[in-house]
Amino acid sequence: MKIARFSHEGAIAFGIVDDDELVVLEKDPMFAGFGTTGERVALSSVKLLSPVIPRSKVVVMGSDFFASAAAEAEAEAESIPREPTLVIKPNTSVVGPGEAIVLPAQSTDVRVAGSLAIIIGTFAKNVAVDDVESVIFGYTIATDVSAQDLAVADGNSARATAFDSFCPLGPVIETEFDVDQVVVHGRINDAQFQNGDTELQVHSIAEIVAFASSIFTLLPGDVILTGSPGLTGSLGATVSAGDTVQVEIPGIGVLANPVRRAA
Amino acid sequence: MKIARFSHEGAIAFGIVDDDELVVLEKDPMFAGFGTTGERVALSSVKLLSPVIPRSKVVVMGSDFFASAAAEAEAEAESIPREPTLVIKPNTSVVGPGEAIVLPAQSTDVRVAGSLAIIIGTFAKNVAVDDVESVIFGYTIATDVSAQDLAVADGNSARATAFDSFCPLGPVIETEFDVDQVVVHGRINDAQFQNGDTELQVHSIAEIVAFASSIFTLLPGDVILTGSPGLTGSLGATVSAGDTVQVEIPGIGVLANPVRRAA
Repeated sequence: MKIARFSHEGAIAFGIVDDDELVVLEKDPMFAGFGTTGERVALSSVKLLSPVIPRSKVVVMGSDFFASAAAEAEAEAESIPREPTLVIKPNTSVVGPGEAIVLPAQSTDVRVAGSLAIIIGTFAKNVAVDDVESVIFGYTIATDVSAQDLAVADGNSARATAFDSFCPLGPVIETEFDVDQVVVHGRINDAQFQNGDTELQVHSIAEIVAFASSIFTLLPGDVILTGSPGLTGSLGATVSAGDTVQVEIPGIGVLANPVRRAA
Repeated sequence: MKIARFSHEGAIAFGIVDDDELVVLEKDPMFAGFGTTGERVALSSVKLLSPVIPRSKVVVMGSDFFASAAAEAEAEAESIPREPTLVIKPNTSVVGPGEAIVLPAQSTDVRVAGSLAIIIGTFAKNVAVDDVESVIFGYTIATDVSAQDLAVADGNSARATAFDSFCPLGPVIETEFDVDQVVVHGRINDAQFQNGDTELQVHSIAEIVAFASSIFTLLPGDVILTGSPGLTGSLGATVSAGDTVQVEIPGIGVLANPVRRAA
């Protein structure tokens, strides 16, 4: 089931995607279930918004990818311990589909990378890997935007990833999604900069969520970016004003955002 | 004026401190002003809570201190550019006065440092240094808790500072406070680990807030930790289960929190 959050005739609502229409929901389904108003609206008549408003945090988990199946087998045989890394983006960085990624005056090298994003549905702390599915509300697409020059200058990514508009989310939440092999395609205008799957990812989605929940309490509406497979270069692609960034994950959709310079 | 948030007979409310009593407010004064209910309760009869619920972010700004007035003069003469550093704590790290700082199983070196904390009162982006006062609701005390061993292992502080209970705030918000020279005293049990003022801080409070607002939109309820003067060693003091941490800022009060190990 695909859930959209949208504005239509001056009001904001949630709906279930049914072909080219939206079945309008009474309330936010994360907190109030899937009761419908009986109304239907054409998808083409609404403006899609970020499908979630993170109440607390957006967590970007860094998780490496093995170079090959042989490398994966070797690491597993040697039981090399690796932990994901993390960066926290403020919820003020979230924008929806079609909204501009705004290049800040402070940076001359803003990069983008596509990621599967998990939307948490319940309070959760110290979740076991086997129980992770029960705390997930659904899945969407994130474009992880970062000012690479500031990350280098600072020696960490806290400031570089925190700017307003640096976390486009959408276009919809898919509540049923097979995370065993996620494919992520990234394009700037018509040029592909990302084409990969998570088959060789060091940590599974469940391991990533369990790890995050070992640090802090997850809240309904928290968003976890799970990593960016198949980047050309490891740091994402540099964008310029006038570009359009598209990230596609088959089974969820395409998240498209234009890029502009700060006014 | 000192404002407390508290629980009393099963309800949560805000009040203005008047000697050993609280003048109960109708609503959250940040959003609804200072209308009173006419009720008064004894301070000794309530449980104080974190005086603010950050809706979006807690930002820890790192700002160095000059070793001496001569060093400050030299840096200013040479116009050495320095920017504050920052780390974002999730709002799930906030606890109130008297609540436990919980040592996570992942760390064997949890440290504490006291800081003046600014509470933002309005939406604010790109605030000029001269206008910063107009976006501040008030001031409180923060104990910045961090797992130093994890910060070293990760090469950054994102995970190390993000654990639940790693941001005690309180005991009250002071709406009128002279930030020109802030004095911070820190004690573990009876031993002092911090005794300093902000006179030689590289960035003023106004510069720190202006810098933060150049990165992201500040929201009402956002909290900015402004730095930890006068630490013995530069990284704060290591705490153990059973300790009590007290941070005192004259003009605001004393924030005290016990330390315990995770269950």
